[in-house]
Amino acid sequence: MALVDRVLLGPGPSNPYPEATAGLAAPLLGHLDPEFLRVLDETCERLRTVWGTANRRTLPLSGTGSIGMEAAFANSVRPGDVVVVAVNGLFGQRMVDVAGRYGAEVVPVEHEFGRPVDVQRVLDAHPAPRLVAAVHAETSTGVRSDIGALGTAVHERDADALVLADCVTSLGGIEVAADQWGVDLGYSGTQKCLGVAPGLAPFTVSERAWQHRVRRPPTWYLDLGLIGDYVSGSAGGGRTYHHTAPVAMIASLHAALGRVLEEGLDAVFERHRAAGERLQTGLVELGLELFAQEGHRLPELTTVRVPEGVDSAKVRHRLLTEYGIEIGGGVGQYASTVWRIGLMGHNARLDRAELVLAALRQVL
Amino acid sequence: MALVDRVLLGPGPSNPYPEATAGLAAPLLGHLDPEFLRVLDETCERLRTVWGTANRRTLPLSGTGSIGMEAAFANSVRPGDVVVVAVNGLFGQRMVDVAGRYGAEVVPVEHEFGRPVDVQRVLDAHPAPRLVAAVHAETSTGVRSDIGALGTAVHERDADALVLADCVTSLGGIEVAADQWGVDLGYSGTQKCLGVAPGLAPFTVSERAWQHRVRRPPTWYLDLGLIGDYVSGSAGGGRTYHHTAPVAMIASLHAALGRVLEEGLDAVFERHRAAGERLQTGLVELGLELFAQEGHRLPELTTVRVPEGVDSAKVRHRLLTEYGIEIGGGVGQYASTVWRIGLMGHNARLDRAELVLAALRQVL
Repeated sequence: MALVDRVLLGPGPSNPYPEATAGLAAPLLGHLDPEFLRVLDETCERLRTVWGTANRRTLPLSGTGSIGMEAAFANSVRPGDVVVVAVNGLFGQRMVDVAGRYGAEVVPVEHEFGRPVDVQRVLDAHPAPRLVAAVHAETSTGVRSDIGALGTAVHERDADALVLADCVTSLGGIEVAADQWGVDLGYSGTQKCLGVAPGLAPFTVSERAWQHRVRRPPTWYLDLGLIGDYVSGSAGGGRTYHHTAPVAMIASLHAALGRVLEEGLDAVFERHRAAGERLQTGLVELGLELFAQEGHRLPELTTVRVPEGVDSAKVRHRLLTEYGIEIGGGVGQYASTVWRIGLMGHNARLDRAELVLAALRQVL
Repeated sequence: MALVDRVLLGPGPSNPYPEATAGLAAPLLGHLDPEFLRVLDETCERLRTVWGTANRRTLPLSGTGSIGMEAAFANSVRPGDVVVVAVNGLFGQRMVDVAGRYGAEVVPVEHEFGRPVDVQRVLDAHPAPRLVAAVHAETSTGVRSDIGALGTAVHERDADALVLADCVTSLGGIEVAADQWGVDLGYSGTQKCLGVAPGLAPFTVSERAWQHRVRRPPTWYLDLGLIGDYVSGSAGGGRTYHHTAPVAMIASLHAALGRVLEEGLDAVFERHRAAGERLQTGLVELGLELFAQEGHRLPELTTVRVPEGVDSAKVRHRLLTEYGIEIGGGVGQYASTVWRIGLMGHNARLDRAELVLAALRQVL
């Protein structure tokens, strides 16, 4: 069968770093092999660096990004807990759904799509929430919110409240400083700025959230107490088998993180910044209008309005079939009026920015 | 970094089929790319063949085997439902835990480890259970149970009762006939006889179980209604995005299933049978005693007692470090008195059987 290759410039997955692909195809190890456990430990240590945390419980969960959202709520919310969710896009909406399933009394704080989270409005929504949740980089709108300001304010008011941050589209592309920002529960995905195929959810839990965790959540697979006994070792010191870890995906993440840290986080962030800036400038030069509010735009994921009279799906189809380039449509009410163009991980490069601009110039 | 390669003859993961490794490393596609959706559809169709089912909802779930167990109970059990679980090993015990978390009134039917499920005792345990669950191939003991006899008997008594089968270590190695056996909910893993890295849980749901499904289970990630709208299409016909599918793992499963079906299921089963028989005969010739009850032994996973006076861990360590061969220890009370040797998927070959026998002969 002939293989098809694409330039993946949608909202994710992005094209993996070559090291990540090599890691996927490396000889498989058993999940209890000492050599694999070394790779796993090193992966967790590398994840601590990109998360900006010293949290002992920093690990890759065995599912795609959304499993991180599920694990965060499942292990922190008890029926009746008040959970304030900042909603400024699809993933905030999803948090409302997930928190509700675990019995939370959810207080959604709705924002206009394309705008960042308004910290004061979120604080004012409830005087004493158990948990406050927000999305750092909204994949549906291309907007960055100030999690540091939110986390600091929440903890200043109540040292026991928990702060949850969705970092699916930020980790490895822009700075995340979980400890400094007061993030108690954070999750991400591998298929965006980390430059790995989808299949793992890098996750971190603060000591505060760990102490307050639900002891026997409905979900066995995502029971952090049981997972922690395998990944970080149990109270007795040894590792206890929980579920078979996705060893190939973890080897791939290990390799990609090695590449990222060798390049240096600051250099990686600068690469994302420069590529995003070139793309956004170029789109405006093409006469297009950016969607996300100025000053809050993600470099790694650009949203742009489909020009009046242009068929969004037709343009995306032509880019895919004639140029092998995938870009994304919009979400919800913006499905056919917004495009989402990602320059993430290995694709955060000037040549990718020029390529998609050139192709758009031809197609429009 | 030097790569380590192993001969994986434990209870899984096993060494992948070469086609599976090539599939993992193939150029990555987006989860909404028409080309990927074609691969996904074909993967589901191939899974129907190995499951022996026409179930429309037959798909790979985005996690390792245990996520299949979680999804099966989460989508079928309501608080207070009576669930009878046949327990003849670790994975039966785990079902008791998982079903209990979703609020089931669980009736465990305990068996001696190493023995198959006693269908009559399971039937007698409760007159009208909502669901009856059993493990087809117990990974912890190497025992095969007769799911066909159980399923038929359960449905003869109550056409509405559901039958759940754990096929993690059977699918792709021995016959599974979900429709003929009356299996309503079945799950497996990719890292055993299917010869793929761990990371997906092949899953199937009968029309009966689908009609009785829980409409808004606590778990969003494993909500079959939402997943079905992406994988099989929604009522309206289109596909609705749920979570980002693990595209590389699915491409790998697709490739491995292609290899298996090209070889032919009967030939694959015969290969597993012959390799297992050779191993079991050889172990007895070495003076060792098989653990699982005669007549109910799995060809793909052999359990054998550690000889009196032999240090189980030391032998496994020598096999790993001197021969690069991984075999498994026992589980629970048998941790240091039983070994588990798998000849699964790509490893279901006479040369692997001879290799591990020769190495054991040297080490013992």
